[in-house]
Amino acid sequence: MRVTLDAKKMPGKWYNIIPDLEFDVSPPMSPSGYPLGFHDLEPLAPHAVIEQEFEKEKREIKIPDELQALYREWRPTPLFRAERLEKRLDTPARIYYKYEGGSPSGSYEFNTAVAQAYYASYEDIKYLVAATGNGEWGASLAAACNFFDIKCKVYMVRASYEERAYGRSIMELLGAEVVPSPSENTRTGSKVLGKDPGSSGSLSIALSEAFEEASKKEGAKFAWGTVMNHIIMHQTLIGQEARLQMKEAGARPDIIISAVGGGSGFGGLVFPFYKEREEGSRFIAVETASAPSLSKGRYAYDYTDSDGFAPLLKMYTIGHGYVPPNIRAGGMRYHGMSPLVSALYREKRIEAKAYTQRRAFEAGVEFARAEGFVPSPESSYAIKAVVDEARACREKKERKNILFLMNTNSNLDIAVFKEFLEGAMEDHVAQDEHVEAAVRDLPEVE
Amino acid sequence: MRVTLDAKKMPGKWYNIIPDLEFDVSPPMSPSGYPLGFHDLEPLAPHAVIEQEFEKEKREIKIPDELQALYREWRPTPLFRAERLEKRLDTPARIYYKYEGGSPSGSYEFNTAVAQAYYASYEDIKYLVAATGNGEWGASLAAACNFFDIKCKVYMVRASYEERAYGRSIMELLGAEVVPSPSENTRTGSKVLGKDPGSSGSLSIALSEAFEEASKKEGAKFAWGTVMNHIIMHQTLIGQEARLQMKEAGARPDIIISAVGGGSGFGGLVFPFYKEREEGSRFIAVETASAPSLSKGRYAYDYTDSDGFAPLLKMYTIGHGYVPPNIRAGGMRYHGMSPLVSALYREKRIEAKAYTQRRAFEAGVEFARAEGFVPSPESSYAIKAVVDEARACREKKERKNILFLMNTNSNLDIAVFKEFLEGAMEDHVAQDEHVEAAVRDLPEVE
Repeated sequence: MRVTLDAKKMPGKWYNIIPDLEFDVSPPMSPSGYPLGFHDLEPLAPHAVIEQEFEKEKREIKIPDELQALYREWRPTPLFRAERLEKRLDTPARIYYKYEGGSPSGSYEFNTAVAQAYYASYEDIKYLVAATGNGEWGASLAAACNFFDIKCKVYMVRASYEERAYGRSIMELLGAEVVPSPSENTRTGSKVLGKDPGSSGSLSIALSEAFEEASKKEGAKFAWGTVMNHIIMHQTLIGQEARLQMKEAGARPDIIISAVGGGSGFGGLVFPFYKEREEGSRFIAVETASAPSLSKGRYAYDYTDSDGFAPLLKMYTIGHGYVPPNIRAGGMRYHGMSPLVSALYREKRIEAKAYTQRRAFEAGVEFARAEGFVPSPESSYAIKAVVDEARACREKKERKNILFLMNTNSNLDIAVFKEFLEGAMEDHVAQDEHVEAAVRDLPEVE
Repeated sequence: MRVTLDAKKMPGKWYNIIPDLEFDVSPPMSPSGYPLGFHDLEPLAPHAVIEQEFEKEKREIKIPDELQALYREWRPTPLFRAERLEKRLDTPARIYYKYEGGSPSGSYEFNTAVAQAYYASYEDIKYLVAATGNGEWGASLAAACNFFDIKCKVYMVRASYEERAYGRSIMELLGAEVVPSPSENTRTGSKVLGKDPGSSGSLSIALSEAFEEASKKEGAKFAWGTVMNHIIMHQTLIGQEARLQMKEAGARPDIIISAVGGGSGFGGLVFPFYKEREEGSRFIAVETASAPSLSKGRYAYDYTDSDGFAPLLKMYTIGHGYVPPNIRAGGMRYHGMSPLVSALYREKRIEAKAYTQRRAFEAGVEFARAEGFVPSPESSYAIKAVVDEARACREKKERKNILFLMNTNSNLDIAVFKEFLEGAMEDHVAQDEHVEAAVRDLPEVE
C-alpha cells in the first residue's frame, strides 16, 4: 500500500534539531585545539551552507522557493506499507518504509546535493569538489551540479574506481570529472603514493584530496555528502514528510529504523520524530559489524579525513586509522559518525545495532521477493533490524508500527547481491583489539 | 516540472483500440494456414488473457479491483516537463515525458507482468515461463510472480546470460529460475545445440524453448512480454494517464514519440491518443537502424519464434531468420512488430524513424545531463527523435508540444553508456540485401 502526499504538503522548511536538544553538542575543532567558527570554514563551503552548519537557535530554516520547485520534481516521496513482507513474516507488526529510491540519482543523497549546488550557484562558485566511495554521493552531486551549470570533480577511492566501474560510469555519464584517489593532483595523494605506489586508497584520503583541491582552487568549494549538521538538516524533508504520511495512515511509529554510515539518512528520517520519544517511540541506528562506530567506538574528537584538512569532530569513532574490510556497503565503512547522531547515542536517546553483511543481504533478498523493489546494500542492514523487530512482535504478540528508510541505488548494487547469492561473500566483524589500537592514536583534543 | 495525478484518477479500465480502427487487423495464424481461435491458444495463456487477446467489440476492459490496488503501489506514474532540456536545445517546443522508471522493476513491463500473474493465480497456474534478452521482461515477470506465489522460469538468450550478468542476477535475486538458451531442456534447444554446440542463442530460440516448456509442463503457461494485443491493452494505462496529465498541464500533444521493439510501450502510450490524430497529432515509432522492422521490413505473416510453436502474425518483419548485430538495446532487436502497430503503419496512421545506436546514446547522455534521470537504451532512441523534432521547431519557430515515453531500467543499462562514452560502441545499419534475403524465406501464409 502506497501513501502519497499532496505536492502542496511538501515541507517548505528544513528542521534543525539543536534547539530541541536538552544537552549541548560539541563544536567542530581545529587540529590545534580551538573551536572552529564561520570564517574557518569559509574557504570550504558556500556561506549560506556554513550558516546552516552553525545554526543553533532557529528550529526551522526556510527552503528557497526555487529549490522547493526543484524538490517537487521528485518530492514528496511515497511511504509504503510492506504488507506482503508482514505476511511472509507472519507478524502482527505493521511495517512502513519511506522510499527515497525515486529521486533522479536513485537515493536520498540528492536532497542535499541540489541544496548545496543551489547555494553554490548563488555565490558564483564554478566547481564543487567531493570525495566518494562507490559513487552514490558523487553521482548525486554530479546530477545536481548539471542543474546549475557547475562543474563537478570527484575523488573516488581507487579500489572502487577500478573494481566497480558502474559508479564511475554514472558520474562520467553525468559529465563529472572522476579522479582515482590517491592521485598525483594533491600533496596528500602524492605523499601516499610516494610511500605506497599501489595504494588502493580510502575515503579519508579521498576527503583530504578533495578538501585540498577545493581550498586551493579559485572559484571551487568542497561538498560534504553526510556527517555534518547542515546535511542532516537538508535530509529532514524525509522525516517531516514521513510524519505527515504516518498520520494519514493512522499509525504512530513505535520503532523507527535506519542504516547509518555518516548518519545523514538516519538523522533525516528520525530527527523530525524526536519528540515522539516522549510517547515511547524507539529509534534504532543500524551499523555494519565491520565498522561499528556507535557500538564499539570511542566518543572523542577525531579527524574526519586522513590529513586533518577538514575539521575535527566530537563523535563516536573507531579511529581514523582503522581500515575496515572492503564490505559491500561503501557508505557504512566510514570510521566516524555525525556529531548529532553521536551525541544522541551518548545521551541514550537512540539505540544502535550492528549486523554482519550476509545477515543484511539475506534480509534484503527477502524484502525484494516480497515487495518487488531491490533495496540498496545500506537499506538491507536496516531491513535486517526491521525483520528482527517484526519477529519479536510475533513472539510477544504485539502490534507495533515499524518505520524505516529505504533507498535503491540499484545502478551500483546488483553486483553486490550477485556476490551474496553466489555464496562468494564473507562476513567481517571489527575485532576489539584492532579498534582499541586505532583509537589509541586519536588526536589529543578535548 | 512534475505533473502528478491523484491516485483516485488512475484509470480503472484498459483501452482496446480495435473497435476504434477504420480497418481490419489480420488474426494470428497457424503454420498450416488457418486463423487461430481461443482454443488454439488455450495451452499457452490464462483464459482471461486469451479472451482479451481476441476482444474486438469492447472498447474498455475493467481492471479487477485487486489488480487496481496493486497498480496503485506505483501508479499513476508522473509526467514531467523537461524544461532544462528545452533550454539546452534553445527550442520553443515544450517537451513532456511520461516516466515509467519508478515501478518496482524499473520499467513499464511491470504493468503487464502483474496483470498476467494475477490472472494466472486465479486459474491455479503454478508456473509462468518466459523468454528474455537482457532481462528486463524476465525481471518484471519474476517480481510479479512473487506477488502471487507463482514460480517463474525464464529462458535467457545465452549471449546475454553470459555477457551481462546483472540481468540474470536480478532475476535470480527475485527467485526466478534462469536457464541459458539454447538449452538441453527442450527439443528446440537440443536441436540447435546439436548443430552448433557453441550457439549464443537468439530471442526467437528462447521463445520457442519457453513455448515448448509451457505447453508440455503441467500447471505451466507462457507469458508474453510484448507484441500481442493484450499486452498493449495492459500498457494503455500509460497513455490514459498521460492524457489526463497533459490536460492538467494545458498542453495538447502535437507529436507523440516512443521507441518500438515489439510495440507494447509505443501502443500503450499512443493508442489512448488515437483520436487526437483528427486534430493533427502525429505519432512516431522509433526503431534501431540495425533491426528496422517498420522502416525496411515486409508486411506479411511471419513466425514469432524460431520453430513456429507460437502463432504466426501479420506484421512488419525483417524475417525471423535475420540475425541483427548485437546492439545495446536488446528489446529492439526483435525481427517483428506488434500486428496492431504494424497495421497502423500500413494504414499511414503512424510514422517510423530509425537511428543508429550512437546517435541514440548521444541524445540519451544529453537528456541525463539536463534532467538527471538516466534513460534506458530504448528510451534513448525516442529521445533522439524528440531532440530532432525540437530542433526542427527551433528552425521553424514553432511552439509544439512533444510527448514521449521514458523508462530507466538502470540496473542493466549503465554498462551500455560506459561502452558508448569510452568510444567502444559501433554503429550498425541493416543492409537491404540482408533483409531481402531474410524476407525471401517468409512462410507462405496469406
